Amino acid sequence: MERYDAPFEIKDERFQVTYLIAGDEATARATAEDICVEQSVEFPVELVPAGFIRDMILGRIESFELVEPGTHKAVISYHVDTASEELTQLLNVIFGNISIKPNIKVEKFDLPESLLKHFRGPRFGTEGLRKMLGAESRPLLATALKPMGLSAEILADYAYRFALGGMDIIKDDHGLSNQRFANFEDRVRLCSEAVAKANKITGKNCLYFPNITGPFDQIMERAHTAKRLGAGGLLISPALTGFDTMRAIADHDEIGLPIMSHPAFIGSYVNGMNGISHYALFGQMMRLSGADTCVYPNYGGRFAFSKEECKSIVAGAQVEMGSVKTILPAPGGGMTMERIPDMLETYQQDVIYLIGGGIFKQGPDLTENVRFFKNLLA
Amino acid sequence: MERYDAPFEIKDERFQVTYLIAGDEATARATAEDICVEQSVEFPVELVPAGFIRDMILGRIESFELVEPGTHKAVISYHVDTASEELTQLLNVIFGNISIKPNIKVEKFDLPESLLKHFRGPRFGTEGLRKMLGAESRPLLATALKPMGLSAEILADYAYRFALGGMDIIKDDHGLSNQRFANFEDRVRLCSEAVAKANKITGKNCLYFPNITGPFDQIMERAHTAKRLGAGGLLISPALTGFDTMRAIADHDEIGLPIMSHPAFIGSYVNGMNGISHYALFGQMMRLSGADTCVYPNYGGRFAFSKEECKSIVAGAQVEMGSVKTILPAPGGGMTMERIPDMLETYQQDVIYLIGGGIFKQGPDLTENVRFFKNLLA
Repeated sequence: MERYDAPFEIKDERFQVTYLIAGDEATARATAEDICVEQSVEFPVELVPAGFIRDMILGRIESFELVEPGTHKAVISYHVDTASEELTQLLNVIFGNISIKPNIKVEKFDLPESLLKHFRGPRFGTEGLRKMLGAESRPLLATALKPMGLSAEILADYAYRFALGGMDIIKDDHGLSNQRFANFEDRVRLCSEAVAKANKITGKNCLYFPNITGPFDQIMERAHTAKRLGAGGLLISPALTGFDTMRAIADHDEIGLPIMSHPAFIGSYVNGMNGISHYALFGQMMRLSGADTCVYPNYGGRFAFSKEECKSIVAGAQVEMGSVKTILPAPGGGMTMERIPDMLETYQQDVIYLIGGGIFKQGPDLTENVRFFKNLLA
Repeated sequence: MERYDAPFEIKDERFQVTYLIAGDEATARATAEDICVEQSVEFPVELVPAGFIRDMILGRIESFELVEPGTHKAVISYHVDTASEELTQLLNVIFGNISIKPNIKVEKFDLPESLLKHFRGPRFGTEGLRKMLGAESRPLLATALKPMGLSAEILADYAYRFALGGMDIIKDDHGLSNQRFANFEDRVRLCSEAVAKANKITGKNCLYFPNITGPFDQIMERAHTAKRLGAGGLLISPALTGFDTMRAIADHDEIGLPIMSHPAFIGSYVNGMNGISHYALFGQMMRLSGADTCVYPNYGGRFAFSKEECKSIVAGAQVEMGSVKTILPAPGGGMTMERIPDMLETYQQDVIYLIGGGIFKQGPDLTENVRFFKNLLA
């Protein structure tokens, strides 16, 4: 085909993705050129028709520079229409096929208002969630109901005791689904009731976030059930359900609950030379996908994120993204009492302090343990 | 809590996951022990209650051995109930939290019939798909409609010419979604009609697989629309939609179309020391999630998979998994005429030969190009 023109007028509106590319200059430049093709037309470049497709659909290198020896940074732009006004296809353009190629990492992305307008993002965001919790500026505390295997009654008793101590958010452990030893509906009913009962005593608004991560054909029903039974929010692992599943639940006006994202099954994206940066994945993508708060493993815990990587997540959660609200990251994964002073210095009031197993370790009285941790954060 | 017993009788039925762990013996053994905890109770191990939870819910090291210097293999078993009879939770137990930890790779998994019975797997599988195509033993050929940006009319014309040449499967390029220059419904209608018209001439049953990867709240509707408009199958990128979304569509009796999975956004799982093996990801997981054929980048093309890795995908697609049917992997990604003899020697009739851009490169007559490739495979 010699030339192809679009049958209607299309303006050249574009969004930008910044990639880090490993390799010497020639290799990295060839990789950048390859990304332009792979992520748009995926077609022999010499056969790409002149006109609309070559001029606008084909990815375009906007800048290319050396970051440090062996690493280059390429800013590549794509036409907003390639993303089809959909989160699934936007993620596909950002990192679809090149997820399979080594030495490419998505550092960040910048979307113009013409694309952002299709994404509502988090319903509550930092401000909305703080308002629900009646805590406009103090550090927030969250914990998890565990271990898997306990009955719904025992988990609800834990929830009651946590809420009584002044916990802000109590989430299900991310492995609690619909197992017969604590099935979804019984667990959500009993835990919601337990937290409501404690809230009456404390006068606070502790929120219970059941885990609704589950089958495609049941997850929306679980969200509705959670809402009906009095849950205060929802926990979702988007790498298991798909990012857009979380987005759809966040967008659902009848559900209207805050959402906490969990990193289960997602770590491989940040663990190698190929992947997505902490900033873009846990900050930008979770946010664009509707999470109001985003769990990630804190530095120095059971996982391997560095302090700089963790701070970049907070930056991604707060960076200006048009009308998409900022969110509260929730560092967890092995937090203990001893870690709090250093964490407070790092994060101040920009995160939700998530302490799971550590709160059980502190001593047999769970309510006292919550008070103890709250005092450390005060 | 001193001891906890389940309130009803639970048999100790287990499934097994084999992990490769990098590190010396002491480090690797500690990692294996950590996996047992992280993937089940995620709780301080000293506080795990005796009885049911410690005896059955906690992961268990079944074997541990040196594979080669610096790499150990651990077989870890989990109770079948931890998976909650759900694909999302099964994947979570196999690789949820440890996706965030370095030096761990899922090599394979073995599920007993008590767990497999909850998963239908591919509706057609190798045998069913071959039967639909009227090709019980010969090598199969597939191609893609591209580049993005062309109108539905032009894509349909390509589809007609491909089908006329004897193509077996014509899929949308995985980036074609619902962009206004070739919106989903127009594209599917025109391409389905074009292929049907060619089939009348050839007497064959070429199948058109539109890409239905899209928003959570639209994908099922797109599957129904595709069925209604005469599509022969469906293309889904499960890393974008969630694996369970593909499973739900495969399980849907009213849709009842074969499914081809695409690897967009999934590569990071196989690209580093942390992740999932080619065998487990492209073979076992795609199959368990309902794909009848699974696209992956062939060795020696634009991507970086080795020949051994590619062969392991075929092995994973064929390994015995109870009543879950075997499937046909579809190596693609830069296949050209010159590659065919070597590929034939490697794969024989165990795959679908997927040639996208290469078929356009061959010459201006697309129908002749298909015949040319078919002859090479004959």
